Amino acid sequence: MSQVLQIGVIGTGNIGTAHARSLSHEVSGAEVAWLFDADASRAADLAAELGAQLAPTVEDLVVSSDAVVIASPDAMHAEQALLCLAAHRPTLCEKPLAPTVEEATTVVDAEVDLGRRLISLGFMRRFDPGYMALKSGIPAVGRPLVVHNVHRNTAAPYGLETALTLTNSAIHEFDINRWLLDDEYTSVQVITGEPGPRTPDGELDPLLVVLTTRGGALVEIEVFMNAWYGYEVRCEVVASDGTLDMGDGSYITRRASRQIGHDVPELWLGRFEDAYRRQLQAWVDATHLGKTSGATAWDGLVATISANAAVAAIGNGAVRIDIPDRPALYA
Amino acid sequence: MSQVLQIGVIGTGNIGTAHARSLSHEVSGAEVAWLFDADASRAADLAAELGAQLAPTVEDLVVSSDAVVIASPDAMHAEQALLCLAAHRPTLCEKPLAPTVEEATTVVDAEVDLGRRLISLGFMRRFDPGYMALKSGIPAVGRPLVVHNVHRNTAAPYGLETALTLTNSAIHEFDINRWLLDDEYTSVQVITGEPGPRTPDGELDPLLVVLTTRGGALVEIEVFMNAWYGYEVRCEVVASDGTLDMGDGSYITRRASRQIGHDVPELWLGRFEDAYRRQLQAWVDATHLGKTSGATAWDGLVATISANAAVAAIGNGAVRIDIPDRPALYA
Amino acid sequence: MSQVLQIGVIGTGNIGTAHARSLSHEVSGAEVAWLFDADASRAADLAAELGAQLAPTVEDLVVSSDAVVIASPDAMHAEQALLCLAAHRPTLCEKPLAPTVEEATTVVDAEVDLGRRLISLGFMRRFDPGYMALKSGIPAVGRPLVVHNVHRNTAAPYGLETALTLTNSAIHEFDINRWLLDDEYTSVQVITGEPGPRTPDGELDPLLVVLTTRGGALVEIEVFMNAWYGYEVRCEVVASDGTLDMGDGSYITRRASRQIGHDVPELWLGRFEDAYRRQLQAWVDATHLGKTSGATAWDGLVATISANAAVAAIGNGAVRIDIPDRPALYA
Amino acid sequence: MSQVLQIGVIGTGNIGTAHARSLSHEVSGAEVAWLFDADASRAADLAAELGAQLAPTVEDLVVSSDAVVIASPDAMHAEQALLCLAAHRPTLCEKPLAPTVEEATTVVDAEVDLGRRLISLGFMRRFDPGYMALKSGIPAVGRPLVVHNVHRNTAAPYGLETALTLTNSAIHEFDINRWLLDDEYTSVQVITGEPGPRTPDGELDPLLVVLTTRGGALVEIEVFMNAWYGYEVRCEVVASDGTLDMGDGSYITRRASRQIGHDVPELWLGRFEDAYRRQLQAWVDATHLGKTSGATAWDGLVATISANAAVAAIGNGAVRIDIPDRPALYA
Repeated sequence: MSQVLQIGVIGTGNIGTAHARSLSHEVSGAEVAWLFDADASRAADLAAELGAQLAPTVEDLVVSSDAVVIASPDAMHAEQALLCLAAHRPTLCEKPLAPTVEEATTVVDAEVDLGRRLISLGFMRRFDPGYMALKSGIPAVGRPLVVHNVHRNTAAPYGLETALTLTNSAIHEFDINRWLLDDEYTSVQVITGEPGPRTPDGELDPLLVVLTTRGGALVEIEVFMNAWYGYEVRCEVVASDGTLDMGDGSYITRRASRQIGHDVPELWLGRFEDAYRRQLQAWVDATHLGKTSGATAWDGLVATISANAAVAAIGNGAVRIDIPDRPALYA
Repeated sequence: MSQVLQIGVIGTGNIGTAHARSLSHEVSGAEVAWLFDADASRAADLAAELGAQLAPTVEDLVVSSDAVVIASPDAMHAEQALLCLAAHRPTLCEKPLAPTVEEATTVVDAEVDLGRRLISLGFMRRFDPGYMALKSGIPAVGRPLVVHNVHRNTAAPYGLETALTLTNSAIHEFDINRWLLDDEYTSVQVITGEPGPRTPDGELDPLLVVLTTRGGALVEIEVFMNAWYGYEVRCEVVASDGTLDMGDGSYITRRASRQIGHDVPELWLGRFEDAYRRQLQAWVDATHLGKTSGATAWDGLVATISANAAVAAIGNGAVRIDIPDRPALYA
Repeated sequence: MSQVLQIGVIGTGNIGTAHARSLSHEVSGAEVAWLFDADASRAADLAAELGAQLAPTVEDLVVSSDAVVIASPDAMHAEQALLCLAAHRPTLCEKPLAPTVEEATTVVDAEVDLGRRLISLGFMRRFDPGYMALKSGIPAVGRPLVVHNVHRNTAAPYGLETALTLTNSAIHEFDINRWLLDDEYTSVQVITGEPGPRTPDGELDPLLVVLTTRGGALVEIEVFMNAWYGYEVRCEVVASDGTLDMGDGSYITRRASRQIGHDVPELWLGRFEDAYRRQLQAWVDATHLGKTSGATAWDGLVATISANAAVAAIGNGAVRIDIPDRPALYA
Repeated sequence: MSQVLQIGVIGTGNIGTAHARSLSHEVSGAEVAWLFDADASRAADLAAELGAQLAPTVEDLVVSSDAVVIASPDAMHAEQALLCLAAHRPTLCEKPLAPTVEEATTVVDAEVDLGRRLISLGFMRRFDPGYMALKSGIPAVGRPLVVHNVHRNTAAPYGLETALTLTNSAIHEFDINRWLLDDEYTSVQVITGEPGPRTPDGELDPLLVVLTTRGGALVEIEVFMNAWYGYEVRCEVVASDGTLDMGDGSYITRRASRQIGHDVPELWLGRFEDAYRRQLQAWVDATHLGKTSGATAWDGLVATISANAAVAAIGNGAVRIDIPDRPALYA
């Protein structure tokens, strides 16, 4: 029997707490040993709940743990990832790898220098049963030509900022469509109309993002942060012999009050809870085998490049996406 | 009791025959009295079937009939519409009003000169129960911001020609989205990728058309002429408080051979048969009242302008759509 | 061109008015010439609206009309049908043919004596696009073994009376399942539980009706008169190689207020409007050809026998359904 | 941090192997330490795969393990459960508790004598996300009046035997409907028609089972062992203010070959895989807390009583279901 991994979790906000609880209660082969948060009392509460210990610093956490989960604010991801690499710790880093291309590049460079993949990136949709079924179904419908994506939030969770819509929300689509198609983007444009009524002055919502790929597919993304009716993610792959359309996997149809239908969640956890669990289990399993799982640091860099290109494209027509040559480490 | 309209039908190909049969068998207040087709024997067969008479010329048909249906080849619509206007005959003209903006303009000008609306244009989707439910539901979901349209043919019915995709197929979407939104287009772009495997050399398929409107909405249309799996038209209106998504109104779910699902038709008649009947009934009713019904010659002109702008936009980014001032006759 | 049938309509309540309007405005080859209602002023209003004349008596109406629609209260159907037979008038009689087996038998006997089928019975579901697609799909899924029917009303339209639930509402299922299966019933039982909260004292609702057929199929019907959420009719045919499940043919999916779904109507007209129109058109067409269409007087008798057997079965386990030998007239 | 439970698994057939793998790879807080199977080489292969040890006898396995999973043939469940009770080991016993009421009663009696609940019964549907959503949604639709269940197998997995259909397949519905309604059955009848074409001589398939409950609800179950098209379980709760209908939680709609739809699995694991994992996790969690989870031995006894009553009811109309008084241990 393999030993149980002692995990350190950096950040005990919503997502860090969810990861720590899932590791403790739903994942085989791991337990949460160490926690760190800038808000020490928040971390202490969770440590008490889970029987974990508080680390005085991120550095302490990293060296004390067998493997690390980074769930701190976005701006700190790259720096902490570098710490983990320096300590040779397998690491699951929440998306994005970094908000800027420069920072994301430093992480990839460090990992390439190390010559060994240690970072798994938290694009959890790759572990969602819906997206997995979508990807596995593609060969049966031919060559993908167009992908229609819908990403709607009930309301912008942290206030609506157009650039953030692309770098924080649509970044999931930037990653998942590459993965679905096994292809790279070549250009992006962002098409906008009159903003919806809940959009702050000077911001835009919804956005229509259209990407082209090396293989010649078109990837369209509607991102709508104040969709109001609920949280929903859809994806239709239009291929040469048929299409595949991913819904929400709802089990229940309710008939009530002159309506037949089903609920949509208000927040993303209601949709992707199981993807988070599967991602953690896959990461723990891979770590036991000395491997990474899911998205790599390279995938994180490409997503950041794509999202930043989209920000640059607002109001500027189609702009090129320049992906550097892929290092051999990520072949 | 109102008298029964004596209808003349020009053109006895697929659509003309369908119209003539529907007028004879399913529509109240009208009967098919006269038929004309360049292929006189084809017309004679249908005349025998329906108890109608053969007109020796289009001119004869027009003056002999109370009202006229134009179902001849596209290139002849405008000229025949002018004949009907000259004879003051209420006319239901199949779409398009004309392939070129110039010809379509002559019809609008003639009708404006006449000072009386006589032409109804055969954009039958305006009478489809699906689209009608879609339009009537919009107020309950707020202000429309984006419309996603899908228009897929099993295979290009008359060979695939990219311009024809826009002027003959997508023209339905050019009309129906204006009608849905009660708005006018301001620009159009046509985004293309690597063509699908059944696309002839030099042609493009599928196309992603994106229109902007005066009101600030975005209208997106995927037109896919060789979609292969079947004929399908969908439309989702994304509004500020919710969305409305139009499917195919299928009644039956079949479980067989490890699948749960329903059939899609191979051709459009399987989807829009009832729309055609309702269009004819509405036109006959309107004619009895001295009115037109559904789309006007003006709507036909705008659709032709829009489709031709889309053709010009292929490979050229977003291009403006210039709609002339709307004559008072069509206010 | 065939002449236009002059139709007389007996009864100008909800359903009679709907039939008269549909005949006037949506049906080819007929017009409403005569109306009769015990409430003469109600009939006069409709006559004015449709340009029809008032008949002083039912007898007058029958002899003045080419063909007759009976839409009077159920208890009068048989007597009026006998009048129409005596006058040799093609007749579309609303369901039921009669509330009692005795009365229904007199009509069948009279028609058999006449030696000519003149009566079409208004089981309009046989003309519903949903049921027609269901029936035509059966051969592809094998031999039918079980049929699950759901018949739910928002609220009992005329107060809830258990016997009436069977003879007035479920009678539609008694007819349509025979037609779907091309088979005859052999027994019926009515299974009941604790009544729902809106059920009057002494009455039962919902009911679970289970019929067996000569061919060995099981037909189950849930009838629920106070289902509260809306009006809905469903039917699933479970066959040896697959199943067919009939829904409501809704076109629109609405996303709003944390829900994805579609509306159900409050009343049956919202579901079966088109079936009524098609039934009338088919009847007018058949009448022009000297034939009947849809259900016959015989079918009406069998439905009444079945519904009355079900009433007798309440609280009595399974009871036999005895169908007399089918007269050659209805072979 | 809680210690890791050392689990012993009796039986390494399909379901025992699935449980052992899931405990090893997907469940937190447990590992598979001991395996036993009458076929020692099959057990040895799995032991090698999972790093577990082979127990020479069931008795050895029980005393060596912290907790036990019984996944042996049905006929041995009761005897092995008694062994586990004698050794005071928390036990997850696959359904059924026993094929006969007598044996099932001995287990309940032994547990009552012990005065402590140690047995959890493997009715995994109680942990299925679909059924959980169904149960949690009931309060919003009022008082349940009727439940329609569909349980279809592609083909009878071990040959079709009518009694086995009830005691081995429909037993899931016997359990889950009590749990859904929090109610007890009072009678059962089994309604049959002409068997489907793949039914062996002398056997019946499909069956329509109708149960009544103390609370007055009707529970209907269609069990169809040779449904041929695929494996499917559905459940609709019809309540006083609305209904809830459980489907299969499919994510993907495929459009191909003139069809829109989704796949159904051939076997139940494709539908209930996640329920099995959740059941194991809940059982391990409960065991750490000294509790049971999900169905109890009492629930197992009641299911066996109900299924055996249904067998007795074949060809005999409605028969009473007599549930003994519930021991205080299961209050």
